[in-house]
Amino acid sequence: MIIAMKPGAGMDEIRRFAETLEKRGVKIHFSEGASQTVLGLVGDTSTIDEEGLLARHLVDKVIRVQEPYKRANRLFHPQDTRLAVPGPGGTVRYIGGGHLGIIAGPCSVENRDQIVDIAKAVKEAGAGFLRGGAFKPRTSPYSFQGLGCEGMDLLLEAKKETGLPIVTELMAIHQLEVFDGVDVIQIGARNMQNFTLLKELGRCRKPVLLKRGPAATVTELLMAAEYIMAGGNSQIILCERGIRTFDSHTRNTLDLSAIPALKKQSHLPVIVDPSHATGLAWMVPAMAKAAVAAGADGLIVEVHNNPEAALCDGEQSITPAAFGSLMDVLRKYAALEGKAV
Amino acid sequence: MIIAMKPGAGMDEIRRFAETLEKRGVKIHFSEGASQTVLGLVGDTSTIDEEGLLARHLVDKVIRVQEPYKRANRLFHPQDTRLAVPGPGGTVRYIGGGHLGIIAGPCSVENRDQIVDIAKAVKEAGAGFLRGGAFKPRTSPYSFQGLGCEGMDLLLEAKKETGLPIVTELMAIHQLEVFDGVDVIQIGARNMQNFTLLKELGRCRKPVLLKRGPAATVTELLMAAEYIMAGGNSQIILCERGIRTFDSHTRNTLDLSAIPALKKQSHLPVIVDPSHATGLAWMVPAMAKAAVAAGADGLIVEVHNNPEAALCDGEQSITPAAFGSLMDVLRKYAALEGKAV
Amino acid sequence: MIIAMKPGAGMDEIRRFAETLEKRGVKIHFSEGASQTVLGLVGDTSTIDEEGLLARHLVDKVIRVQEPYKRANRLFHPQDTRLAVPGPGGTVRYIGGGHLGIIAGPCSVENRDQIVDIAKAVKEAGAGFLRGGAFKPRTSPYSFQGLGCEGMDLLLEAKKETGLPIVTELMAIHQLEVFDGVDVIQIGARNMQNFTLLKELGRCRKPVLLKRGPAATVTELLMAAEYIMAGGNSQIILCERGIRTFDSHTRNTLDLSAIPALKKQSHLPVIVDPSHATGLAWMVPAMAKAAVAAGADGLIVEVHNNPEAALCDGEQSITPAAFGSLMDVLRKYAALEGKAV
Amino acid sequence: MIIAMKPGAGMDEIRRFAETLEKRGVKIHFSEGASQTVLGLVGDTSTIDEEGLLARHLVDKVIRVQEPYKRANRLFHPQDTRLAVPGPGGTVRYIGGGHLGIIAGPCSVENRDQIVDIAKAVKEAGAGFLRGGAFKPRTSPYSFQGLGCEGMDLLLEAKKETGLPIVTELMAIHQLEVFDGVDVIQIGARNMQNFTLLKELGRCRKPVLLKRGPAATVTELLMAAEYIMAGGNSQIILCERGIRTFDSHTRNTLDLSAIPALKKQSHLPVIVDPSHATGLAWMVPAMAKAAVAAGADGLIVEVHNNPEAALCDGEQSITPAAFGSLMDVLRKYAALEGKAV
Repeated sequence: MIIAMKPGAGMDEIRRFAETLEKRGVKIHFSEGASQTVLGLVGDTSTIDEEGLLARHLVDKVIRVQEPYKRANRLFHPQDTRLAVPGPGGTVRYIGGGHLGIIAGPCSVENRDQIVDIAKAVKEAGAGFLRGGAFKPRTSPYSFQGLGCEGMDLLLEAKKETGLPIVTELMAIHQLEVFDGVDVIQIGARNMQNFTLLKELGRCRKPVLLKRGPAATVTELLMAAEYIMAGGNSQIILCERGIRTFDSHTRNTLDLSAIPALKKQSHLPVIVDPSHATGLAWMVPAMAKAAVAAGADGLIVEVHNNPEAALCDGEQSITPAAFGSLMDVLRKYAALEGKAV
Repeated sequence: MIIAMKPGAGMDEIRRFAETLEKRGVKIHFSEGASQTVLGLVGDTSTIDEEGLLARHLVDKVIRVQEPYKRANRLFHPQDTRLAVPGPGGTVRYIGGGHLGIIAGPCSVENRDQIVDIAKAVKEAGAGFLRGGAFKPRTSPYSFQGLGCEGMDLLLEAKKETGLPIVTELMAIHQLEVFDGVDVIQIGARNMQNFTLLKELGRCRKPVLLKRGPAATVTELLMAAEYIMAGGNSQIILCERGIRTFDSHTRNTLDLSAIPALKKQSHLPVIVDPSHATGLAWMVPAMAKAAVAAGADGLIVEVHNNPEAALCDGEQSITPAAFGSLMDVLRKYAALEGKAV
Repeated sequence: MIIAMKPGAGMDEIRRFAETLEKRGVKIHFSEGASQTVLGLVGDTSTIDEEGLLARHLVDKVIRVQEPYKRANRLFHPQDTRLAVPGPGGTVRYIGGGHLGIIAGPCSVENRDQIVDIAKAVKEAGAGFLRGGAFKPRTSPYSFQGLGCEGMDLLLEAKKETGLPIVTELMAIHQLEVFDGVDVIQIGARNMQNFTLLKELGRCRKPVLLKRGPAATVTELLMAAEYIMAGGNSQIILCERGIRTFDSHTRNTLDLSAIPALKKQSHLPVIVDPSHATGLAWMVPAMAKAAVAAGADGLIVEVHNNPEAALCDGEQSITPAAFGSLMDVLRKYAALEGKAV
Repeated sequence: MIIAMKPGAGMDEIRRFAETLEKRGVKIHFSEGASQTVLGLVGDTSTIDEEGLLARHLVDKVIRVQEPYKRANRLFHPQDTRLAVPGPGGTVRYIGGGHLGIIAGPCSVENRDQIVDIAKAVKEAGAGFLRGGAFKPRTSPYSFQGLGCEGMDLLLEAKKETGLPIVTELMAIHQLEVFDGVDVIQIGARNMQNFTLLKELGRCRKPVLLKRGPAATVTELLMAAEYIMAGGNSQIILCERGIRTFDSHTRNTLDLSAIPALKKQSHLPVIVDPSHATGLAWMVPAMAKAAVAAGADGLIVEVHNNPEAALCDGEQSITPAAFGSLMDVLRKYAALEGKAV
């Protein structure tokens, strides 16, 4: 971390300021320039708050040279993390480290037939994981809120029928009680900075699929992952699902450059949700292919056997048939990228 | 709600579609145009999901004529809501309905002397409420996370010493156990769409200060309020605290036009947080005055007796002396707006 | 266009209002609903201004069913436009309609050796066009502003040496005097809504590469194209080059979903500039591949033989060697998409 | 300017790099830290391009300590600039330096009666300047494009009738021929980075009202002013008129924090356009008051005698009567801010 002191700041004051920093475990290197003094901080600066520094009247500017995350940082873990998710009967599915993980299923679990049928269809098409929401975060209190615990039971039935591991969203800590059979816990975009929830997940021993918030920077997403990792759980899948911008031609703006950005900074696998990002079923295949071409380690795609009657997000769901065709194409893209589907 | 059907859609299909809508309690008015049919929906459309409609292949466009919120809507409650917060000793403080509510205090409670001294200072300067964080949402897991329950005790001591009602942030449902003495529950910007928390607050009988999320539209803020109101708690204060934009000359971009926008759509009081919006103490007075001039019903301002040593957000905290001067000026602006401070 | 009149508006007033609209050549279909009257406008509504309508006190909401552009609209020109650019010696290069057009070269022309060497290198690697700036739009008046007319001469030399058609930026009408030998006129992002310039280009008989402004919606980009087309020039290449968002991990946020969005609405070819979008040379290959996978009709890539010494934009330029490797990979992606390079 | 070199970069290479910088007229101060070397540049760094530096493989991060603008910089011109605009008959009107300049009039000049009537009305209400567009930048080529030279003649008639100096928009250099009688040249938001136009204005001897682009940062607005000032014209009025954000409850998001930000960095006067910012007539008074409270040096307000029939921007125009009432209120706000109207 480099701190430029204000021009004209007195050396005595600067030294006293530097001493307070040294108490936090860093070493300070002084550089007295012609017009201003610059401090170089050596050591672990992750506990030093830039904003706190900027509150000091002596401080002009601060540059963080080291990123503020450690466990999520590729610097300290150069190799790609490959996440292994055990399924029923001793099977294992992978995401990352050369494996393209495909998660597919409906936005919400609606009834037994719906979820089991879709599960079978996506499995046949080649998906490795089944998604489906039991607890749904909805903008309006008057919209369908998910089937809750009943939905969870239906998901487990679909898992039993197909052997597909289950990915479903957790909205609050107390719901963990019914997450025993869940294989990957999804944290939704609007909960990316629900820090109480993140801390709790740190104590959990299940993989977490962490979605980027619609207004979160790449660094903030990595800091959210760091919250979970700091608690001891390093099984994290990062998910780009679109950010909020001025243009509303798609529901959100899919930021595919986040894939190389995240993978450069971090060893964690990065997947993409083209369904929520665009909100438009007809755009999902183009964005799914682009995500793989940009280096994604997986996809999470909404598939519904009757999008027009879906209780939520029908506009962005593709049919099992469309998903099957997409998988055929994606295998070719994955091959170009040297990835196993 | 007006639904434009796709050009060329058959009338039989359109009638079947309309019947499914009528089952949800609305009446449909048909208009067969030269090129396309338009349906007008009459009745309560708040339970009808625009996105669900757009998933139907027959549907071209949807306009919502009625807003999707009811209890927060000024249409059904034309008069301004004036929130009355009872304080110790039978006192009552107001926000809204001609009353400018001023909430002031530090970002975090740090120790007894700090919070009591600041409480006394802001009370003397004319603040009506004391703010202070015990549970702190921080971007980094390595930053100071607040004193927790101990901080809550210190806040109550400051309340006892000064008689100021307490405003403090709730991050998770289980923390409600220690919120008995709290007068106004603050929901932070990053929890504005923590729907599980919002539902719980609906069962609560305390006023809620609901901050706008950094990427939330004005309509989404009102929908978040609607979540709480739908549960039975209508004591809500809306708070504009800056949105995320491309420019970072301030921490967030304070959207003062949200004040007239919210007040036109809703009867709920609207306050402004110039401290978090700008992140810059020197800019707080200008933005506080502008907020009052734009029609705000109150302000929440960070005040710290030693901003340079603050454990968080020092950069945006003003001193008690600066707060005193600001209050002197604000009284004049409030007078021009016909508001009691 | 559908106009919802305010609830309670009198039928007499509404009829008078409708008559003023009919004078502009549209037919009006009335629909008296239970609570409000809805007008359906049939005919060419492209000259009717939504904002003008919203100024009327009778008008509640307006939905445009037809897009406001005509010549750029796929509705009236269902087939993809394939742009043919004649080069020296009777050669022709294509962009669109199944042809992937690759434009490569330095940000600025710096000297004869630089531009001729790069031109040869990118030609050998497989580029179809040479880019290079002679007139440079720079944020600071103190930065290098391009070689101007001298740069133009050097570009023409490079064209003579290699046979590659030239793509270069026009900043002002008077510069057209020296654009005789230029094959494709580039309009930079910051001039996308320089309407005087757009009108002038309508009178021009050269292809125009029109870059999306950093804050322009997909619709606004198409309206800018419409300006040129309305003047009689329909040889337009649309270019996505990143939009401005809250996150600055890349210089702009590349919106690859604009490719399918533009291609659905318009018949014009769409290319992508991964260099300006990301501002980071190491990210260019991933984004170039993703653009092709998302359906782009071409790419414009910055290539410099010595990025570290480049007079501008070195940070985002790749070397000729890196460009060669990228081309090898892109051919495989183009093949998957059924496109000729 | 401070340059952090990459950890591990060799001292020899760093010295060679530093020499190339010294050739550009700055002095370099070296600081060899434990993990990386930091260079401090002393002198005029405004010609040194941050992006160029970041292209060097040796460079890790760059912080600009000095702002990249000089003539617009308050550092070199501590006192507020007060712009004096001479009107007919030896009158002088001021903006800045304690004077609140009020510019009012219609979006477009439509006919003689319209512009003269409005001019008389706004003069009587207390406006100091008349605005009105003769050349109009419109998103659609099919919208009304202004009366052009005829509109300019009508503006001059209104000036003759009322003595009000004229503010009108210049869209292209060649239009300057008919700008002789114009008192203040307005540069629209979409031309803020039309650098050819800015350079030409540097040679002009008239005041320039420079509007902030919808996606321009505060720094970029100051750099655009610097372009004009570098050419020798320092009579510039900066204008905040809303930026583009994700929320569309107003046409743009008015960034009132730009007022204190610009005034801290620069000595130039800053005015606000609440009409274009919000796009909503009913919101103009609240935002006009807020702008004055936030420290604006003036306002530019759209006034039309028949907003419903306006050829453009009727939705955001207030009537002369509403403008009169607004002026009565603004005088009180100006008095609180110690400003003369």
